[in-house]
Amino acid sequence: MAKDFTSRSEDYSQWYNELVVKADLAEHSAVRGCMVIKPYGYAIWEKMQAQLDKMFKETGHVNAYFPLFIPKSYLSKEADHVEGFAKECAVVTHYRLKNAEDGSGVVVDPDAKLEEELIVRPTSETIIWNTYKGWIQSYRDLPILVNQWANVVRWEMRTRLFLRTAEFLWQEGHTAHSTKEEAIEETEKMLDVYAKFAESFMAMPVIKGFKTPSERFAGALETYCIEAMMQDGKALQAGTSHFLGQNFAKAFDVKFATKEGKQEFVWATSWGVSTRLMGALIMTHSDDEGLVLPPNLAPIQVVIVPIYKGEEQLAQISEQALKMKAELEAKSISVKYDDRDTHKPGFKFAEYEFKGVPVRIAIGPRDMENGTVEVARRDTKEKEVLQQKDIANKVEHLLENIQKNLYQKALDHREDNTFKADSWEEFEKLINKGGFVLAHWDGSAETEEKIKDLTKATIRCIPLNNKKEEGKCILTQNSSSQRVVFAKAY
Amino acid sequence: MAKDFTSRSEDYSQWYNELVVKADLAEHSAVRGCMVIKPYGYAIWEKMQAQLDKMFKETGHVNAYFPLFIPKSYLSKEADHVEGFAKECAVVTHYRLKNAEDGSGVVVDPDAKLEEELIVRPTSETIIWNTYKGWIQSYRDLPILVNQWANVVRWEMRTRLFLRTAEFLWQEGHTAHSTKEEAIEETEKMLDVYAKFAESFMAMPVIKGFKTPSERFAGALETYCIEAMMQDGKALQAGTSHFLGQNFAKAFDVKFATKEGKQEFVWATSWGVSTRLMGALIMTHSDDEGLVLPPNLAPIQVVIVPIYKGEEQLAQISEQALKMKAELEAKSISVKYDDRDTHKPGFKFAEYEFKGVPVRIAIGPRDMENGTVEVARRDTKEKEVLQQKDIANKVEHLLENIQKNLYQKALDHREDNTFKADSWEEFEKLINKGGFVLAHWDGSAETEEKIKDLTKATIRCIPLNNKKEEGKCILTQNSSSQRVVFAKAY
Repeated sequence: MAKDFTSRSEDYSQWYNELVVKADLAEHSAVRGCMVIKPYGYAIWEKMQAQLDKMFKETGHVNAYFPLFIPKSYLSKEADHVEGFAKECAVVTHYRLKNAEDGSGVVVDPDAKLEEELIVRPTSETIIWNTYKGWIQSYRDLPILVNQWANVVRWEMRTRLFLRTAEFLWQEGHTAHSTKEEAIEETEKMLDVYAKFAESFMAMPVIKGFKTPSERFAGALETYCIEAMMQDGKALQAGTSHFLGQNFAKAFDVKFATKEGKQEFVWATSWGVSTRLMGALIMTHSDDEGLVLPPNLAPIQVVIVPIYKGEEQLAQISEQALKMKAELEAKSISVKYDDRDTHKPGFKFAEYEFKGVPVRIAIGPRDMENGTVEVARRDTKEKEVLQQKDIANKVEHLLENIQKNLYQKALDHREDNTFKADSWEEFEKLINKGGFVLAHWDGSAETEEKIKDLTKATIRCIPLNNKKEEGKCILTQNSSSQRVVFAKAY
Repeated sequence: MAKDFTSRSEDYSQWYNELVVKADLAEHSAVRGCMVIKPYGYAIWEKMQAQLDKMFKETGHVNAYFPLFIPKSYLSKEADHVEGFAKECAVVTHYRLKNAEDGSGVVVDPDAKLEEELIVRPTSETIIWNTYKGWIQSYRDLPILVNQWANVVRWEMRTRLFLRTAEFLWQEGHTAHSTKEEAIEETEKMLDVYAKFAESFMAMPVIKGFKTPSERFAGALETYCIEAMMQDGKALQAGTSHFLGQNFAKAFDVKFATKEGKQEFVWATSWGVSTRLMGALIMTHSDDEGLVLPPNLAPIQVVIVPIYKGEEQLAQISEQALKMKAELEAKSISVKYDDRDTHKPGFKFAEYEFKGVPVRIAIGPRDMENGTVEVARRDTKEKEVLQQKDIANKVEHLLENIQKNLYQKALDHREDNTFKADSWEEFEKLINKGGFVLAHWDGSAETEEKIKDLTKATIRCIPLNNKKEEGKCILTQNSSSQRVVFAKAY
């Protein structure tokens, strides 16, 4: 399985590309920039979706569905938004095909030209706020706490599976509030939901922070984000939550009557995570032997492989294996018993290792005699022989342990690769080494841009509750009151 | 709530349109033909999705995701398919917008024209079979049992919320098999899944049958369907399952090596249900007081409304109400306790009646004294006073009873409106009255077409396991071996 598989140290980028395809997670489609998410990859995404959806509902949100298409003119209604989104997008201009006169197939029917072109949604603020106008009259209609699971399209020129694709799957929350305070509270609440999900389910530590003004979402007054560090030291923005102020309410004229009977513009937030999280998950934990999945998101948490000669032995082992399977499933652990006779145990071991199954149980004739099984964990590749008695409890603890270990390992990696720089020379050296560099910045967009030009590093975020510390900007020596997080990023 | 609400007898079509909007299920969007599915409507769709997804997985299927876009040339690869689908569809011709020179907004960038136009998927057979080509080499790779939850677009000129919209949500199963027999078995298995779902969850009786050749899916050798009768006697096709033979395998050159080493084309099926089921659900059960939902699909199964004067009384009642709520929830019954002080009980009663909540529990000061509650069921509008003791069991049984009653009522309605016609005169009279008419047909597409022209009725299906019966075609008097189901349809 791991043959012809590039190692991380050889070429990290190539390692990632190969892993996604060889582990059956996704592949490129015939449509430029669009991916096919294969069943094994989609099963992981479904687990992410289910957990996030649960957390959204627990925080009072409901789901709805808005149109795929956005009238072209809508994108222009919010000044910043049009700059950010109305560029690289898929444009529908016609609504009919007809048979080619030469019989060669079908051609676009020139008579079926749309009066106004439709844009395949790159994000849905405009169509949603146009809809909210009809839903909101008074303070009694607020808040609106709506989320949508959908596909979106941004015509990226350079694409990578999961990390940057023309079409991707995501959720976008769009909420409407009667006060600024409530909207900010919502923005922060959803950032916390994302951070909790990343840390507890993806086993991926994140830094919560604000984006600088130049990295904000087009149309937002404040963009909050969670930033994670990949194994190569690069940052990956894993989720964003935007405080939109009254910008979209003003653009679409959405007002409400206050308790006192005054007309005021509505306050807005939006927040989203996408199939990009799949890329983050893969790059945080996987190794040169393939995928490593945290138990909380693994479609198969435990695989049981029988080692046998002949049908009689298989029958005996299967009886015991299926008993274990039932015991594990009673604890809501997902188990696969792989008794295929078309593949040898060694092949199966390699396959499940490559696919990141957290725990593998092997059971052979000697185990049957001794009442034991061999239990191997994917994260550390340690193996131990355990008594079959009480195996479900032992495996349950092992899965918890693996989940914690993966998180701790990722946290240690981040801490080992987070540095402070106090001179430009030091900064350049550290940034090129890879990792997060905490450094002073004078707060100007110009300096930010210049640093980016010189090093390719961007300010990933200004951490929430950042420690105040007097210092001098790494580039300009102008005064600064805090360090910000610099890194090269995906 | 039910004010300004058209009754079914006044105008059935208008009644439906108003109900969908007034019950907060869906509304028209600013994009022609595309709907917004509102949170209450989406919550019902989510319950449908969850149950169907469970049933698909129980029958061995997995989910995946394929691109939204299909290269134009793909549609032409299967001869019948292009006739059926390559007509009214959304065509993406450009991938970029730019600022208008006159500053009036954004315009399509003529330099960003696609070499080959992309079609927003009207269905995904072509892009999926193009993908399967890479997945299938040998019999060991089969069967492939994949389902996709997705949005699709068909540019309908006359649209109605849920029943016919340009964009709709659906699931499409696409399976690949090594033998014809296995593919037919799959086609029938999924028809059974749909029928079971319709009857057990939607409380909607259906007839399982075959479509006539002229009503088949474009590219199918056989289309199976489930047909339901709405309250106005019209038929609604609620789901289809297609045996595609080797048509798509041939179009996309998908072959596999058999156990014997021969190269053969792969056998295919596809099957789907859509948000159209929402229309079917609404039209099967609802009445002149609004929506009626079967308990198995109701987002709120029980609502508890307190009847009180003053905060002290509310506090006492709330304590009891919340205790009941917890007891009901322990039985996995979804309960809303509506203690809003901004609305009177009468308003709340009308609102939940209109929204089809199956059971309403009212609790007031006299109930507190007597240890009782008033329980009203939405389907029959009967009310009874019950002891609070053991209320959760009673309500649980009541919900089961409502579910059964709705199914039985719909079944009785269908039986009362299913007729046999043995002469053309009789046929015309019955068809215009509304309902299903069982009549002989000579099996020719010409006759079918002529009957449609004369009466607007179509052959809904040839029932599975249809009783053989010698007779003469209702129109041509040619001989016929069985009756088929005629009806006007949505």
